[in-house]
Amino acid sequence: MKKKISALVASSFLIGTAVSADGPTVESVSASLDSTWIMVAAFLVFFMHAGFAMVESGFTRSKNTLNILMKNILTVSIASVLYFLVGYGFMFGSSAGGFIGVDGFALAGVDDIGFFVFQAVFAATCATIISGAVAERMKLGSYMFLTILMTGLIYPVVGHWVWQGDGWLTALGFVDFAGSTVVHLTGAIGAIVTVKFLGARIGKYSNGKVNVIPGSNIPLGALGVFILWFGWFGFNGGSTLAADPELVPHVVATTLLSASCGVLGSAFYSLFRYKRIDASLTLNGALAGLVGITAGTAAVSLVGAIIIGFIAGVILIEAVQFLDRGLKLDDPVGAIAVHGVCGVWGTIAVGFFATEGGLFYGGGASLLGVQAIGVLAVIAWTVATVALSIFIMMKVSPIRVSREEEISGLDFAEHGSSAYEFRDSILTENNPTPSGTDFGSGLVQRLDSLGTKTKNA
Amino acid sequence: MKKKISALVASSFLIGTAVSADGPTVESVSASLDSTWIMVAAFLVFFMHAGFAMVESGFTRSKNTLNILMKNILTVSIASVLYFLVGYGFMFGSSAGGFIGVDGFALAGVDDIGFFVFQAVFAATCATIISGAVAERMKLGSYMFLTILMTGLIYPVVGHWVWQGDGWLTALGFVDFAGSTVVHLTGAIGAIVTVKFLGARIGKYSNGKVNVIPGSNIPLGALGVFILWFGWFGFNGGSTLAADPELVPHVVATTLLSASCGVLGSAFYSLFRYKRIDASLTLNGALAGLVGITAGTAAVSLVGAIIIGFIAGVILIEAVQFLDRGLKLDDPVGAIAVHGVCGVWGTIAVGFFATEGGLFYGGGASLLGVQAIGVLAVIAWTVATVALSIFIMMKVSPIRVSREEEISGLDFAEHGSSAYEFRDSILTENNPTPSGTDFGSGLVQRLDSLGTKTKNA
Amino acid sequence: MKKKISALVASSFLIGTAVSADGPTVESVSASLDSTWIMVAAFLVFFMHAGFAMVESGFTRSKNTLNILMKNILTVSIASVLYFLVGYGFMFGSSAGGFIGVDGFALAGVDDIGFFVFQAVFAATCATIISGAVAERMKLGSYMFLTILMTGLIYPVVGHWVWQGDGWLTALGFVDFAGSTVVHLTGAIGAIVTVKFLGARIGKYSNGKVNVIPGSNIPLGALGVFILWFGWFGFNGGSTLAADPELVPHVVATTLLSASCGVLGSAFYSLFRYKRIDASLTLNGALAGLVGITAGTAAVSLVGAIIIGFIAGVILIEAVQFLDRGLKLDDPVGAIAVHGVCGVWGTIAVGFFATEGGLFYGGGASLLGVQAIGVLAVIAWTVATVALSIFIMMKVSPIRVSREEEISGLDFAEHGSSAYEFRDSILTENNPTPSGTDFGSGLVQRLDSLGTKTKNA
Repeated sequence: MKKKISALVASSFLIGTAVSADGPTVESVSASLDSTWIMVAAFLVFFMHAGFAMVESGFTRSKNTLNILMKNILTVSIASVLYFLVGYGFMFGSSAGGFIGVDGFALAGVDDIGFFVFQAVFAATCATIISGAVAERMKLGSYMFLTILMTGLIYPVVGHWVWQGDGWLTALGFVDFAGSTVVHLTGAIGAIVTVKFLGARIGKYSNGKVNVIPGSNIPLGALGVFILWFGWFGFNGGSTLAADPELVPHVVATTLLSASCGVLGSAFYSLFRYKRIDASLTLNGALAGLVGITAGTAAVSLVGAIIIGFIAGVILIEAVQFLDRGLKLDDPVGAIAVHGVCGVWGTIAVGFFATEGGLFYGGGASLLGVQAIGVLAVIAWTVATVALSIFIMMKVSPIRVSREEEISGLDFAEHGSSAYEFRDSILTENNPTPSGTDFGSGLVQRLDSLGTKTKNA
Repeated sequence: MKKKISALVASSFLIGTAVSADGPTVESVSASLDSTWIMVAAFLVFFMHAGFAMVESGFTRSKNTLNILMKNILTVSIASVLYFLVGYGFMFGSSAGGFIGVDGFALAGVDDIGFFVFQAVFAATCATIISGAVAERMKLGSYMFLTILMTGLIYPVVGHWVWQGDGWLTALGFVDFAGSTVVHLTGAIGAIVTVKFLGARIGKYSNGKVNVIPGSNIPLGALGVFILWFGWFGFNGGSTLAADPELVPHVVATTLLSASCGVLGSAFYSLFRYKRIDASLTLNGALAGLVGITAGTAAVSLVGAIIIGFIAGVILIEAVQFLDRGLKLDDPVGAIAVHGVCGVWGTIAVGFFATEGGLFYGGGASLLGVQAIGVLAVIAWTVATVALSIFIMMKVSPIRVSREEEISGLDFAEHGSSAYEFRDSILTENNPTPSGTDFGSGLVQRLDSLGTKTKNA
Repeated sequence: MKKKISALVASSFLIGTAVSADGPTVESVSASLDSTWIMVAAFLVFFMHAGFAMVESGFTRSKNTLNILMKNILTVSIASVLYFLVGYGFMFGSSAGGFIGVDGFALAGVDDIGFFVFQAVFAATCATIISGAVAERMKLGSYMFLTILMTGLIYPVVGHWVWQGDGWLTALGFVDFAGSTVVHLTGAIGAIVTVKFLGARIGKYSNGKVNVIPGSNIPLGALGVFILWFGWFGFNGGSTLAADPELVPHVVATTLLSASCGVLGSAFYSLFRYKRIDASLTLNGALAGLVGITAGTAAVSLVGAIIIGFIAGVILIEAVQFLDRGLKLDDPVGAIAVHGVCGVWGTIAVGFFATEGGLFYGGGASLLGVQAIGVLAVIAWTVATVALSIFIMMKVSPIRVSREEEISGLDFAEHGSSAYEFRDSILTENNPTPSGTDFGSGLVQRLDSLGTKTKNA
C-alpha cells in the first residue's frame, strides 16, 4: 500500500520536491521540523481571527453584528494580500537606516515562504485590534482603508525596528519577543487615535452619565476568548521560529500561567472593587494576561509570568475604568485597555522581570530605559501616521455612519440584512405581513413567520 | 523526573513500541515527523466538520437547527466507520483496471493507520457538503442512507481514479492535489442531483417570486467559515503527505492567499453588483477561494493563487444567482455554488496556472483538456450513481418530510425538541401553561417561564 | 533574508538556547519532535476547555450562562496555577509509598516544562467535569474552593497512583492510558458527591414528575462537542508522550472510531427506545465514545474501539435515564453519565478488549480484576475526600444559591448582568424606561431599545 501512497504524491507532479533524492539528513529533518512547527503556529495565529470576530460580535449589539464580522474577515484578507505585496518588504527587506525595509516586495528573493505566512497572519492581528474599538459606528469603507495602511505600512515599519535584525530598536537592545508592543500596542494606539476622531457611540455618554451598553452574546464572546488563548500558544510559541525543546515549552508555560493569572487577577480585583465577579472583565482578564506576557514570554521565569499576568488582570480593570470614565474613550470591547495598556505593561515588565538584564534580577535600569524608549517611539510613530491618515480620510468623506444608520444598526445600513433570525421575528410583530410568504393561516402562519420571515429579494 | 515519565509510558504496556530499542535514526525521526504532520492535518480536517455544522446551522432557520446538527455529526461518524470497513479498500486497494480498489477492506494488510485516519476524515467532508444543500426538508433517514453510499462507494471510486496511483485519471495526468474535484465537486454533484429530486423549500419560489430565506445565526455561520479556513490548512497542507519544508509552506501560502482573495473578490463584486457588501456572500467568498485553490495549491504560484481566489469569489456570486434564479435550485447555504462551480473552476484553473504544464506558462492546452476530462468523468459518475440511488430510495419511501413537518420545522418533527430556548419562550406566549412548572406567580413566573420552559417528559 | 530571520531570534536574547552551537543531532531532533508533539497535544487539551464551556452553556438555561462561563474559565486558570504550585509535585514527585508525591513543588528540580504544561491542562479537565453537573445552582465561590481541592490534591493523588511510575496501581498492572478513570471517573465522582449534597434544581422534580429542562443554545452545545472531540485527539494522542509513528496513529484511529460509534450507538438506541433520534443524547454519544476509549486507546484494536464506542453510546442513554429517574441525580448536562458511567465502562473494557492481556484475547480475568480494583479505589478516594471537603464547606456557608437567586438566574444574582441581549430586550417590555437613553421616539426608539438597552452604571 506504501507504493500507492507515494504514487499519490507523484500524481501531484511534485515527487521531486517532496522527497529528497538522497534521503533525509539530520539537517534536512531538523529544518522540516522547524518548518512544521512554524506552520502549526501560523494556523493557530490565523485562528485568532475567529477569536477576535467572536469577541467583537459577542460584546457588541446584535444590530451591528454583520458589520463587525465583515470587518474581521476583510482585515485578515486584506492583510494577507497586502503583506505579500508590500508589508513583508517594508518589514523584513534590507534596512534603510534601521527604519524601513526596501526590498522583498511580492516576496521577490524571499525563500522562506513559511516565515512569510506566519508574519502575514501576525500582521493581520495588529490591524484587527482596531475593529473592536471602532465597532458600531465606523464606516466599513473607512475602516478598510485604515486596514490597508496599518498592514501595508504602519505595522511593518514598527516590525522592522524591532524584528528585522538591523532595526534601530534592535540595536538599542529592545526586547519584545512576540509583540506586546510591535503588535498589540501598535494596534491599540491606532484604535485610540481613530476613536478620538470618531467619537463615542450615541447613548454612551448622555446627560452627564456613563452608560453601559451590554453585549449581545456573551457565550460567543467567551468562545472568542478561549480561541484567542488557544491561538496565542502559536503566537508566542511560534515566535521562537524553531521547534526548540527548551524554549518552546518555556514560552508556552509562561503564556499559560500569565493568562491564567490574568483571569484570576481580574476576577479577584473585580470582586474586591465591585463586590462581584464581573463576567466581561474576567474574560478580558485572560487577554490582559496574554498581552502582558507577549513581550517577555521567553525572557521571564514562570513565577515572573504569574506576577506579570496577575498585575495585568488588575491593571485591565483600572484601565477600562479610566478610559471609559476618565478619558471618555468609547471602546465597546475594551481593546485599548487590553492591547494598549497591558501592551505597555508587558513591555515595561520585561525591564523588571527578565532573568537576564531585568531590574529585579540585578540587571539595573538600563533595559527598563530601553523598553520605555521603544514604547514611546512606537506610540509617537503610530499616533502621527494614523492621525495623519484619518485626517486626510476625513477631508474626503466622513468616517462615521450617519445618526440614522447608527440607530437603526450598521447591519441594515451597510449590509441590508440582520445577523439573527430573532431580530427579524421581533420586527415581524410590527410588520405582520412579511412579503413573499404563501403559507396557510392561524398558528401555522404564526409559527412559520417566526422561522421564515422571507423578503422579496 | 525523566525516569518517572518513561515509567508513565511503561504503565501503558507500550514501551516496546514507543521507544525503539536502538534509539532513533535519521530515517525513523523523518518518518515520525511525517506521521506527526499528517496527524495534525487530520485533526484540522476533522475540525472542518465543526465548521460545516456551524455554517449550515447559521445559514438556515432555527426551526431546523437540531436536524442539521444531527446530519453533520452523523455524517462524520458514519463516514469514519464505513471508510474503515469498505471505503478505504475501494479507494486505495489494489486496482481493478484503474477503476476501483479490491482489497484493504477493514484495513486488512494496511500498515499506515495515520494515512487511513487522514483519508477517513477527508471522505466525510465530501458527504457533508450535501447536508447543507438539502437542509430544511430532507428526511434524516434518507440523508443517512445517501451518506452511506457517498462515503462507502461513490467518493472512494472517484478517489481511486485520481489518488490511488493506478487510477485511470492519474494515468492521463489529471491534477487534483487536494480535491477540488475529488472531494468538492463530487459532493456538490451529489447535492445537485439530490436537490433536483427533492425540490425547493416551501415558500422559496412562490407566485413567480424568488424569496430570500435569511439565516438564523450569522455569527455562528461566520465562525464556521473561520473554522473551515483554519481546517483547510490541514486539508491542503496534509495532502502533501510529508512534512516537506518547501512544499508545505507553499501550499499553505497559496491557500491563505486564495481564500483571502476569495473574500475580496466576493466583497468587491457584491459591492459592484448590489451596491453593498453582502455579508453572507462575502463569508462564502472565503470558501470559494478555498475550494478554488484546492486542486492547484501545490502547482500554481502565489500570484496564481491570488488570481484564482479572486475569480472564485466573483464566480461564486454569479453562480449563486444563476442556480437560485436561473435554475431554481434551492440550496440554503450555497453549497453547490461554493463546492461545485468553484470546484470546477479550481480544477480547470490548474490547466491555466500550473507553473509546469499550464497554458499561461507555455504548457499548451493538453493539461487543460485532461482537467476537463476529469471534471466531466466525475460529474457523469456521480450523477449516475446518486440519481440511481435516490430513484431507488424514493421507490421505497419519500425522501422529503411532509408539508406539515416542514412548516413546523424538522426539529419538532424529527427530534421532538428545539435548538434554542428563545423559540420555546416565544411559543410559551401561545401556550401560557407549560406543563411541569411549580413556580410562583407574577413577574417571577414570567421571568422563569422564559428560562425554564419545562416539559413533562 | 535568512540572516535577518536569525537576527530576529537574536533580538530576543535567546540565540544560545534556540540553536545548538554544534548543530542538530539525531537525538536532539528526535527530542525536539517529541516536545513539539506534546506541545501541540497540550494546545488541543487546553482547547477542550472551550468545548466544555460551550457544552455547558448550550445545554443549560440562558439565565445561568455567565455563571457557567465563569466556572469554566476560572477552572482552567486556577488549575494551571495550582498544578504548578503543588499539583505536579503531588502527582509526579518522588513517591511516598506509592500513594503521593513529595517533591517537585513549584517545579523545583523539574526539567521537562512541556510535560508540566500537558499535565496541567489535563488536570483542569478533571475539575471542569464537575461544573456541568452542578450548573444552575452551586455558588461560584464554593465551586472555586472545590476546584482548588480537585486540582491541587484529589486528582493529583489519583494520577500518582496510576501514572507516576511508582504508584501502587501501576504496580498492580492497572491500565488507564489517557484517563478514563484517572481524569473522567475522578471528575464524575466528584460531581456525584457534590450533586448529592446540592440537590436538584428547582422545578426538576415536582409533583412526582421528572421534568425536562431544555438547553438554551444547542448549536453552541454541538460546537462544544466537536471541539471536545477535536481536542481529544490531543488528550489521547499526546498521552503517548512521544511522536511515535505507529502508536500515535493507532491511538488517533481508535479515538476517531470509538467516538463515531458512540454517536451511532446513541442515535440508533435512542431511535429504538424513543422512536426518534434525540439530538442531545446523540451529541453526548460522541463524548461517551471518547470517554470509553480513553483508557484502552493504545491497548485495543480498531475493531475493539468500534465495539467499545458503540456500547458506550448505548450505555450513555440507559445511564442518563437511571441517574435522572432512578437515582434522581439532577445533572443538567449529563456529565455523570458521560464521564462516570462511560469512564467505568472504558476502564473495565480494557480487561476485555486489550490485545495483550484482555479476556477476549486469551488473557484471562486477571487484568479485568485489576481494572476493577482501580475503579473501586478511585471511587473510594474521591467519595471520601470530596464528601469531607463539602461537609466542611457547608459548615462554613451554604454551597447553594438562595431560592430567589436560582429563580432569577445566577447571572443576575452572582454577576449582575445577562448573557444575551435577547433577554434584556424581553425585560425591556416589562420595564419600558431604560435608564440613560436619549434616543428619538416611535419606531426608532422601539428598534433601538432592543439593541441598546443601556444601564446607568
